Amino acid sequence: MTDTFQFTLKATDGGARLGEVSMPRGSIRTPAFMPVGTVGTVKAMYLDQVRDTGADILLGNTYHLMLRPGAERVARLGGLHKLIRWEHPILTDSGGFQVMSLSGLRKLDEQGVTFKSHVDGSLHHMSPERSIEIQGLLGSDIQMQLDECVALPAEPKEIERAMELSLRWAERCRVAFGEQPGKAMFGIVQGGDQPDLRVRSAEGLRQLDLKGYAVGGLAVGEPQDVMLKMLEETLPALPSEKPRYLMGVGTPDDILKSVARGIDMFDCVMPTRSGRHGLAFTRRGRINIRNARHAEDMRPLDEESNCPAARDYSRAYLHHLVRSDEALGGMLLSWNNLSYYQDLMKGIRLAIAEGRFAEFYAETQAMWARGDVPPL
Amino acid sequence: MTDTFQFTLKATDGGARLGEVSMPRGSIRTPAFMPVGTVGTVKAMYLDQVRDTGADILLGNTYHLMLRPGAERVARLGGLHKLIRWEHPILTDSGGFQVMSLSGLRKLDEQGVTFKSHVDGSLHHMSPERSIEIQGLLGSDIQMQLDECVALPAEPKEIERAMELSLRWAERCRVAFGEQPGKAMFGIVQGGDQPDLRVRSAEGLRQLDLKGYAVGGLAVGEPQDVMLKMLEETLPALPSEKPRYLMGVGTPDDILKSVARGIDMFDCVMPTRSGRHGLAFTRRGRINIRNARHAEDMRPLDEESNCPAARDYSRAYLHHLVRSDEALGGMLLSWNNLSYYQDLMKGIRLAIAEGRFAEFYAETQAMWARGDVPPL
Ligand SMILES: [Zn+2]
Ligand SMILES: [Zn+2]
Repeated sequence: MTDTFQFTLKATDGGARLGEVSMPRGSIRTPAFMPVGTVGTVKAMYLDQVRDTGADILLGNTYHLMLRPGAERVARLGGLHKLIRWEHPILTDSGGFQVMSLSGLRKLDEQGVTFKSHVDGSLHHMSPERSIEIQGLLGSDIQMQLDECVALPAEPKEIERAMELSLRWAERCRVAFGEQPGKAMFGIVQGGDQPDLRVRSAEGLRQLDLKGYAVGGLAVGEPQDVMLKMLEETLPALPSEKPRYLMGVGTPDDILKSVARGIDMFDCVMPTRSGRHGLAFTRRGRINIRNARHAEDMRPLDEESNCPAARDYSRAYLHHLVRSDEALGGMLLSWNNLSYYQDLMKGIRLAIAEGRFAEFYAETQAMWARGDVPPL
Repeated sequence: MTDTFQFTLKATDGGARLGEVSMPRGSIRTPAFMPVGTVGTVKAMYLDQVRDTGADILLGNTYHLMLRPGAERVARLGGLHKLIRWEHPILTDSGGFQVMSLSGLRKLDEQGVTFKSHVDGSLHHMSPERSIEIQGLLGSDIQMQLDECVALPAEPKEIERAMELSLRWAERCRVAFGEQPGKAMFGIVQGGDQPDLRVRSAEGLRQLDLKGYAVGGLAVGEPQDVMLKMLEETLPALPSEKPRYLMGVGTPDDILKSVARGIDMFDCVMPTRSGRHGLAFTRRGRINIRNARHAEDMRPLDEESNCPAARDYSRAYLHHLVRSDEALGGMLLSWNNLSYYQDLMKGIRLAIAEGRFAEFYAETQAMWARGDVPPL
């Protein structure tokens, strides 16, 4: 831990990078996966459990938190860390993505975006400055610029307009954020599936000399190879001494392939959302626990895991819980999945440190391809 | 622990009784509260947590378990204890109560009851013998006779008919259960709100020399004083050397008053169901955490509790979680409530042991009456 936000690149192995973000509230070992604590809770998990899986940092959703409990209220209560009982770093998104995807009546112009709350229909306005103000009220350690994210496929003209608006907003966010040595504000590369726009966006952000750079607007409907190509185009345009965060991604396979291309940070609701729907991520790939083959299988999901949910509970019991819509099913599978994601990150970090990321990559892919243990 | 089912009455204080049930899977300190593990899970709780609150025994619902995962399946998997990971005693109800309240198309005659599953509409028949068979397949330690429970108010003739049918079914259940020294089958006193029928029922069951006796058909809509009067009429007709279980009861106040009249065992969904709806039970009475007064109150529910949910999380956070329909809200309040119920039982047992149950009763009532801490 340090008084100031610092990123140390410790090793590289091919395109993969091993690093560490240090900041007053703690260190983040990268490549890092950030569990999503949407509205101040990682769904169906105790934060003690989340920490124990190996999470160094949580993501909070500004859009959700500004509506409930409200940014000013969180500030009066001493900040998000205190309210939710998480003393380690928190990254907040800008709210822009959810404004686009969840709220009704969206009116966007140069100044910002006006939207209707999906909770109570109330009207809200968010400018780049207000987004940073809200993230500050929440007490966020890593704050994100407000951006406009375009769903793909989209017209190049439309992608360009949104990318340029996002660049202007990045600059306004940087001014609003000011000097906060122990915290960071990251810019977000936009540009959809257009390599030239991605590079222009990255170069524009780089001028602003931010503490970190995110790649946004991916995993929004495009094929995986498009996403990977965009990373290949974008990352060389970003400074290597700053952390790189791929927003909202993804599957274990997305993560492995993005690490190979130089990404340091990830977040995704997949482990928890899939868990609540009966899908387990394991060393042996995905397991749909609702499947009848598990109904009388007393074996655990993964006998070698250190996670109690994976190691100590039978598939038969998990199957029964999920089929019966019991909360414990989602609790256990979310736990298993977050644990698997963190184990994957740990394996990735160790492999890069030991210069054998390519082998780790191949072995991990081979294990997934081999698939689950045969039915009983 | 012992090889055989035994009940030891250790002390009495007024009508209140301190005792212990010993059986191969463990001891049950009485008066005991049994958390309800409806379908093989205490909703939104890890069973490790349930155990840590002080629970010696769980209740499982035969009706739910026979439909999912199914009794024969549970038996093939090694029994309910193994499936759900609970090595301590389990009591199962007979299924009769849920057949009456949850299933459609119920046809009841001397042989038993035919009903339609609320899960998939399939037809099932349950006789007294089949109920005991199912409970045996589940591996239940304390099994309940099949009975017919009449909703109150009801005509005395109808109450009498159901009571007499229940008595005949008790005898058939006793035969079906046979000799199982390490387990027990309890009879159930019926008779609605009719004292003479209650006494006839108790005397009839007593003839069968069962290992324990339950009082059923109460807390089904009648006022509390009617329930307490029925206990006063019924309990003297039951042998004092056997445990007495009041089914489906109730609030902390119901429990305190029923202990005062000689009840040894309780079960109720109230702590978990209320918890999922934002109601917290505490030393200072009930707290509706949805109430706006808690929105910015960073104090815990009860700073003196040993339960992390009660002691370590703020009311403001609980309020936010419940208002946002987040699973963690129900997880924490269920935990708080089960913990409070077990603390109450512990306090009751200690008070009886020390011959100061009346003082404990008065102090507890006074604390509830004083109510919650004043708002900030
Ligand atoms: Zn995602
Ligand atoms: Zn009840």
